[in-house]
Amino acid sequence: MPTEGLTAAELAELAQQLRVDSVRATDAAGSGHATSSMSAAELGAVLLANHLRYDFERPDHPGNDHLILSKGHASPLLYAMYRAAGAITDEELLTFRRQGSRLEGHPTPRLPWVDVATGSLGQGLPVGVGVALSGKRLDRVPYRVWVISGDSEMAEGSVWEAVEHAAVEQLDNLTLIVDVNRLGQRGPTRHGRDLDAYARRLKAFGWHTIEVDGHDAQAVDRAYEEARSTLRQPTAILASTVKGKGVEAVADQEGKHGKPLPDATEAIAELGGVRAIHVDVAKPAAARTLHAVPSGHLTLPRFETAADNGDQVATRDAFGQALTALGSARSDVVVLDGEVGDSTRAEYFAKEHPDRYFECYIAEQLLVAAGVGMQVRGHVPYVATFAAFLTRAHDFLRMAAISRADLNVIGSHAGVAIGEDGPSQMGLEDLAMMRAVHGSTVLCPCDANQTARLVATMADLKGIRYLRTGRGKSEVIYGPDEEFPVGGSKVLRRGEQDRLTLVAAGTTVPEALEAARLLAADGIDVRVIDLYSVKPVDARTLWAAAEETGCLVTVEDHHPEGGLGDAVAEAFADGRPTPRLVRLAVSSMPGSATPDEQLYGAGIDAESVATAVRLLVEKAVVR
Amino acid sequence: MPTEGLTAAELAELAQQLRVDSVRATDAAGSGHATSSMSAAELGAVLLANHLRYDFERPDHPGNDHLILSKGHASPLLYAMYRAAGAITDEELLTFRRQGSRLEGHPTPRLPWVDVATGSLGQGLPVGVGVALSGKRLDRVPYRVWVISGDSEMAEGSVWEAVEHAAVEQLDNLTLIVDVNRLGQRGPTRHGRDLDAYARRLKAFGWHTIEVDGHDAQAVDRAYEEARSTLRQPTAILASTVKGKGVEAVADQEGKHGKPLPDATEAIAELGGVRAIHVDVAKPAAARTLHAVPSGHLTLPRFETAADNGDQVATRDAFGQALTALGSARSDVVVLDGEVGDSTRAEYFAKEHPDRYFECYIAEQLLVAAGVGMQVRGHVPYVATFAAFLTRAHDFLRMAAISRADLNVIGSHAGVAIGEDGPSQMGLEDLAMMRAVHGSTVLCPCDANQTARLVATMADLKGIRYLRTGRGKSEVIYGPDEEFPVGGSKVLRRGEQDRLTLVAAGTTVPEALEAARLLAADGIDVRVIDLYSVKPVDARTLWAAAEETGCLVTVEDHHPEGGLGDAVAEAFADGRPTPRLVRLAVSSMPGSATPDEQLYGAGIDAESVATAVRLLVEKAVVR
Repeated sequence: MPTEGLTAAELAELAQQLRVDSVRATDAAGSGHATSSMSAAELGAVLLANHLRYDFERPDHPGNDHLILSKGHASPLLYAMYRAAGAITDEELLTFRRQGSRLEGHPTPRLPWVDVATGSLGQGLPVGVGVALSGKRLDRVPYRVWVISGDSEMAEGSVWEAVEHAAVEQLDNLTLIVDVNRLGQRGPTRHGRDLDAYARRLKAFGWHTIEVDGHDAQAVDRAYEEARSTLRQPTAILASTVKGKGVEAVADQEGKHGKPLPDATEAIAELGGVRAIHVDVAKPAAARTLHAVPSGHLTLPRFETAADNGDQVATRDAFGQALTALGSARSDVVVLDGEVGDSTRAEYFAKEHPDRYFECYIAEQLLVAAGVGMQVRGHVPYVATFAAFLTRAHDFLRMAAISRADLNVIGSHAGVAIGEDGPSQMGLEDLAMMRAVHGSTVLCPCDANQTARLVATMADLKGIRYLRTGRGKSEVIYGPDEEFPVGGSKVLRRGEQDRLTLVAAGTTVPEALEAARLLAADGIDVRVIDLYSVKPVDARTLWAAAEETGCLVTVEDHHPEGGLGDAVAEAFADGRPTPRLVRLAVSSMPGSATPDEQLYGAGIDAESVATAVRLLVEKAVVR
Repeated sequence: MPTEGLTAAELAELAQQLRVDSVRATDAAGSGHATSSMSAAELGAVLLANHLRYDFERPDHPGNDHLILSKGHASPLLYAMYRAAGAITDEELLTFRRQGSRLEGHPTPRLPWVDVATGSLGQGLPVGVGVALSGKRLDRVPYRVWVISGDSEMAEGSVWEAVEHAAVEQLDNLTLIVDVNRLGQRGPTRHGRDLDAYARRLKAFGWHTIEVDGHDAQAVDRAYEEARSTLRQPTAILASTVKGKGVEAVADQEGKHGKPLPDATEAIAELGGVRAIHVDVAKPAAARTLHAVPSGHLTLPRFETAADNGDQVATRDAFGQALTALGSARSDVVVLDGEVGDSTRAEYFAKEHPDRYFECYIAEQLLVAAGVGMQVRGHVPYVATFAAFLTRAHDFLRMAAISRADLNVIGSHAGVAIGEDGPSQMGLEDLAMMRAVHGSTVLCPCDANQTARLVATMADLKGIRYLRTGRGKSEVIYGPDEEFPVGGSKVLRRGEQDRLTLVAAGTTVPEALEAARLLAADGIDVRVIDLYSVKPVDARTLWAAAEETGCLVTVEDHHPEGGLGDAVAEAFADGRPTPRLVRLAVSSMPGSATPDEQLYGAGIDAESVATAVRLLVEKAVVR
């Protein structure tokens, strides 16, 4: 029997249970955010008992609602709700924050009912927009998305990117619940308990807003009902609450953030003691399963090589074409653009598959978050903007990894090779950023066929996978049937007398090849490796090159730190004998110049590479 | 004679000149954003002629207004204004986007009249808030801050962080001019020319708004006048404009973004030909010079070493104390907090120097941008939040480097050593991020005295300097008089028989020292280097250790990519013989656990390090 329609008295009791359990969990852990959980107890209780549609035995049920606790530090409340729903035992509740426990300090998808990790504030709503967009425009399933947010985090710009997008897209399946408890970590928030300050702002963006006493269970119940029946607008429920509500020793006081209560026993008594109310959470209606098996034959674009007199092609163009082909073969592929689709070429996809193309405008945090939200629903998102502007979403990428998200990220206009636009538009730290994301894959193709293959391959990888593309046209080096396994590389030039190895990726591969030709004319043979898989890296091929040539020279259109040079060095970080290493990278601050001038200025064009190698030979650094 | 009070006809002529010059510059360059410049021509002309107070011969004049072109791609407009003001010649105007020219594709402070680099959208207003806050609360100089923004960039969350902060701080010296030309890069914006859509949002946040026809010079003039006379509120002028205004072939059309005009000669004719109107820009009133010489004796906190039975001290505590002392000695030091000052200990400064402490709430983009704005005015900002949350401001840090900003950045709660809170709160990619920032300094102190010294030292460095602090208490290793030059290191343990070298920084230094003691008990001598200066790195000491011990084992509380291991490898990236390298770092995804369990789980505690070294010895990897 579903518990929908608990009475006000029953709801109040349930809320007290959630408070008590929050106190118990944090007390057992010796740390954690008890007071931030207590303020939202009625908000959580009423949602769980009367409004959430969720089958805890089938977290993958396509009809399930999605509950995102954006104020992730209030995890004790969430875990208390899980206990009330019978999803976890009381015993497990008390493992909170212990080593090995699924009940981490901030929620992560190690728990099957958690969609995404939270704990970096201001991320719940942007991700919720992605989940809600899926419901409306992709899945066509009438689930609801409930985001419980703190008041402090309303200061994050990412929230307002999401507020804007949700309103314009009329996401009436999305409800934002703001726990306005007046106190942030270090003291009062900007607006205290002025609910109208929040409401005015949200209304101006087109939201429906409801102001409510967050400790009046009946009022909260009515607010949820109103949210569920509001059409063509997302709803924000602004709930006035008291941090630490229910326990005199901490209620509404500064300096009580992020701590267990001083006297748990006394607090539990004050809250009426331990309870064991079970909530039989209402299950969702049947809904069709998503993406049974992506089907259809994939016909990637094929580019003629330079050897066959093929045209020069930019890797961004190949990306756009391959993505479009992938979208024709697979119905689960979706594409998100940061208002630069004409430049990244994501726009090609839009023309063929407009229903699966999402314009996120110039809001890179929302861009990445919406992609994360869509992969929650089983879609395969490709989010694309300039490599430089992905730095705007660094925190979202970092958190996406903690969320165990499967996400394709494309950064175009990499490096100084873009030319005249200057440094603000140049991705020169993207490899460092993306390599340091936990479990990421980093791909850096140098020609059109390689790009096309990798665009298709990345769709089936796990985790955050990054593809770096370039602006300018370049020769097609590989035939269309060449394969490019992740973790592989291509030895493009080798000989018995190689005196060192040039290791390049992307734009610098043709430069390295040309440098090798120039050097060969001088009687200096060098090996050339195309290290298109920057992470994971093809250590074996690098080890062989080290052993056979003794010196590896990396050539990258990226700052010297954290990129290709680092990837190569890391292949030797297990204590084996290390070859001599030389890094050629972008060390100075570029200005405006033509692409050729930029590469020369950075010392990574063919002529500069050849000069550097000649110097190494002269100085007898290499054999 | 100042030109204040140009007639409408004269202003219209000046606007046409700015259009013509934008067309000429982009045509000469063969690239650039002509149409985005043309929409804002009246906005620029009226500002320059009738409202800006600026001495172009004295860009460092403390009374100068500050003009920030947030829509940096409209640089031709800005450069055309400089030509009209006599700051650059017509000849220089036509060097736009050429190699070596100061007139880059997007403005940078290579030009003395440009405060900060723009080109990553949504940054002008947040930086402007910092400049305006300086005027109000630090400098007490009545200059005005004018930010010219595009309409597309209003989608960036960072803009709304700034909108909120500016209103709460009642920055009536700040004017936002939005060039609502309806068209973004790839097509229409969300709100087209619906000025009221922008005005509603801004008003809800507490701004004064003015809607105006952006091509009606008199109306624009009145709007500026109204902005100047509005008290206790920042003003936004929402100007309806036409992209490419004045040239039929491009006006109000999609697909004309970021390109010179198809026929420049014809366009110039249509615009009435080349003009040479000179604007005698009004100069500011006299204002006192800022920060003649920071004075006062610096008395840093002194901590007793463990050897002298001193207490354990967290590096974040030492940071807070040293910062406070620095603030007493230097009146130019200002501190900005991201609503975690109680945790980072920036709050210590607030108690002593409340007038120079700025609470930016949970809005890390604004936090960094406001710091950048304050250094424009000669202040020495320290911006502090959790290391993990600095990723939120990555794009602002990247752009700050392009802005040649001098900025101190503090990231606390680094690494798994924070313990139970879990991965969302752990800075595990901060070293990779900060090392890859151009020209940055990266410092990672391991004890209280070292921290205190480095906090003081960093104040006088150039560029972006980063200091990483930890949450937990640890032994004081160094005496209070020890010196720690940037680019240095400390050899904490060395012997004739060292079989390898442990290289550590921050939290891992005590672990490495303890590992060395454990190993010594087994008869295995190892060297220990405290590499507190991660960038620049003390290559000489590493070279010596390599030569003398043959193997360097890095131990870091950070992901394996881009951090300490990379910094050490890079010291050998000039082709010299490379030692064997081993990286011990955080490779798996942490959950919740105690700090000790976390270090053990990551394999970077003393016991794990000793075990790893024993294995290297057994496998005869080391001598």
